[in-house]
Amino acid sequence: MSLIVQKFGGSSVANAECIRRVAGIIAETYQAGNEVVVILSAQGDTTDELIAKAKEINPRPSKRELDMLMATGEQMSISLMAMCLAGMGISAVSLAGWQIGMKTNSHYGSARIERVTGERIKKELSRNRVVLVAGFQGVNPSGDITTLGRGGSDTSAVAIAAALHANKCQIYTDVDGVYTADPRKVPGARKLDEITYEEMLELASLGAQVLHNRSVEMAKKYHVQLEVLSSFKQLPGTLVKEVTKQVEQIEITGIAKDTETALFALVGLQDEPGKAFRVFRLLSNAKVNVDVILQSIGRGSIKDISFTVPKCDTEKTLAALQEHKAALGFDRIDVDTTVAKVSIVGAGMVSTPGVAAKMFEALADAKININMISTSEINISVLVNAEQADRAMNAIHDKFFGEQ
Amino acid sequence: MSLIVQKFGGSSVANAECIRRVAGIIAETYQAGNEVVVILSAQGDTTDELIAKAKEINPRPSKRELDMLMATGEQMSISLMAMCLAGMGISAVSLAGWQIGMKTNSHYGSARIERVTGERIKKELSRNRVVLVAGFQGVNPSGDITTLGRGGSDTSAVAIAAALHANKCQIYTDVDGVYTADPRKVPGARKLDEITYEEMLELASLGAQVLHNRSVEMAKKYHVQLEVLSSFKQLPGTLVKEVTKQVEQIEITGIAKDTETALFALVGLQDEPGKAFRVFRLLSNAKVNVDVILQSIGRGSIKDISFTVPKCDTEKTLAALQEHKAALGFDRIDVDTTVAKVSIVGAGMVSTPGVAAKMFEALADAKININMISTSEINISVLVNAEQADRAMNAIHDKFFGEQ
Repeated sequence: MSLIVQKFGGSSVANAECIRRVAGIIAETYQAGNEVVVILSAQGDTTDELIAKAKEINPRPSKRELDMLMATGEQMSISLMAMCLAGMGISAVSLAGWQIGMKTNSHYGSARIERVTGERIKKELSRNRVVLVAGFQGVNPSGDITTLGRGGSDTSAVAIAAALHANKCQIYTDVDGVYTADPRKVPGARKLDEITYEEMLELASLGAQVLHNRSVEMAKKYHVQLEVLSSFKQLPGTLVKEVTKQVEQIEITGIAKDTETALFALVGLQDEPGKAFRVFRLLSNAKVNVDVILQSIGRGSIKDISFTVPKCDTEKTLAALQEHKAALGFDRIDVDTTVAKVSIVGAGMVSTPGVAAKMFEALADAKININMISTSEINISVLVNAEQADRAMNAIHDKFFGEQ
Repeated sequence: MSLIVQKFGGSSVANAECIRRVAGIIAETYQAGNEVVVILSAQGDTTDELIAKAKEINPRPSKRELDMLMATGEQMSISLMAMCLAGMGISAVSLAGWQIGMKTNSHYGSARIERVTGERIKKELSRNRVVLVAGFQGVNPSGDITTLGRGGSDTSAVAIAAALHANKCQIYTDVDGVYTADPRKVPGARKLDEITYEEMLELASLGAQVLHNRSVEMAKKYHVQLEVLSSFKQLPGTLVKEVTKQVEQIEITGIAKDTETALFALVGLQDEPGKAFRVFRLLSNAKVNVDVILQSIGRGSIKDISFTVPKCDTEKTLAALQEHKAALGFDRIDVDTTVAKVSIVGAGMVSTPGVAAKMFEALADAKININMISTSEINISVLVNAEQADRAMNAIHDKFFGEQ
């Protein structure tokens, strides 16, 4: 008998029909003799509707109260699913975050999980019940409801799988696995059978939206074997694990695109020692997450510094730089939000010479200009014009995986 | 400084506009220097919508899961109200039933309150916060969410007022107080300034729908002074308390109508000792709440027994009687669901001779036939044809309170 944790996202439980389909998957897993713990998100657009309700009352609602409001969404999903399973003759029980001891810190809206007590879940499993847990939510030391922020339900699932030493944590979503590239953009994209945590982390943080990197980080830390699969198709998904069998044979694992990036240029910066350091310390203090950095070679006493930040931090970045314009001493700030970062990822890259050259060749052949380049041990990212990003992905994909 | 508990029903918080109006009432009470604890119901039709959602999934959902689902309604109301008050510069905090220690038994769907710990509420009050509590819900010894059933939010409010030794418990509703009769049916009905718990209990159980008698019973038991008033008009309401000043001066306090009653007649019952007892023991075992009873004088060896039951118990009553037809020995059962019970209530009745005669005279003058009569220390009820009930109420009201 295995203990399997399954997580279904909002689109998988959007309406009664979807709930019945998911109940079928849960029932099958349970009837195959497994212990099953299921983590659910709020139905479809519920979270957005609740936020709209809040904004109608107060355009800047407190995060504590917003969490109190939003937590109702997942509670609805789990109680409805319990009713559906009961209708199929399967004993199930729904539990909110506070009931399973999902202990978090007090950062409302983006709380971090500190501990999962899990006693209640174990008790219900021992009664042969399917346990349905509200994802995305927890309880802080004051006994108040918190939510986990982006990727929260995936993270709930991995944390519970870790606490229960589950044999597997299945993340059901609307795609049937992790692909070599986004199949909506790259027609030739192939589904991967396996991928390492590190590769998945790179893909997630580089723009692939299958799994949030918080949940992958936690899975890696606690050795939780993840499986990404579709709740709409009965197909094997992608396993995310420590070591994969293909690591040595393939050059790269996947290609990702991130259009949520803004390119800043500080033009005419006085070329003094420590100037770059002061710029980035300033942005760090402003909680701006600087990504790729390019420092031009100085022309006489001045130089330019370019860097990318998440698009949502554009205003914050501008404000911080403008405020210290005199101290930093630059002529002007150029901002370009029409850029995209295209990245290749692969644990095998480090042991395979010529991967970068092959990528740049693909882009050159496609006449796509590269603005900036950044590399790490298992990824290479290039900044290109956003309009050319899909073409860039396809060109790179064809080069590495062969034309479809 | 007083501690005031305020309860607002679903229609008072139905939408953003209603929430703002109620927030105004709360703010005024708070800014007058009072400590304020507010109990809210789910918005407008939310509870019905949630039940419909459940029934779509499972026509007979488990009560435990239905409570889990329904409890989200009040949680939404309180968080939205906290946001609204915050927008007005008033510090408020929303708390679900489990957070304030609203301990109940495990009768899902109709749980009884066992204890209110109230520590958390006191802590928040000491921080000068308005405390917003989700009504209608509690938590059982297993740590599961329960709901209190009909009249639940009123009962939550009274229980919290009792636990906190509040100076007053204000029940805001869509009427502006307790009337001598339903003002929608009796145009001359007058608002009462004060009414005793006993009178309110009689009115509530005789069909006046202002307060549920569970909440009045609890208020009486714990000496909680209630006030019924309107959230739509800025007017004094009706105080419900131990002793009222007018008790000696007026004959009756109010008139109520109950059309949710069914009249049964067991015709041709063998007239043997103990026969009536056996009929009513049988109905008691079937959990049927028998109200008015009339036993005809026997005609030879047979007699008839008539009694009323709540209309919703009609089928259950019929089934129980049919099943034991042979043992009881009667010719047939007549059922009439077109009757109404019209009652007069007043603590002064017992010390004022001729009240019953005055009531019967009013009905006789209006040519309204009386089917059955029942009396208690503070009420007289008559059974009339349902179509004549409003006319009966008006005739009685005119007789006692003078024509409008």
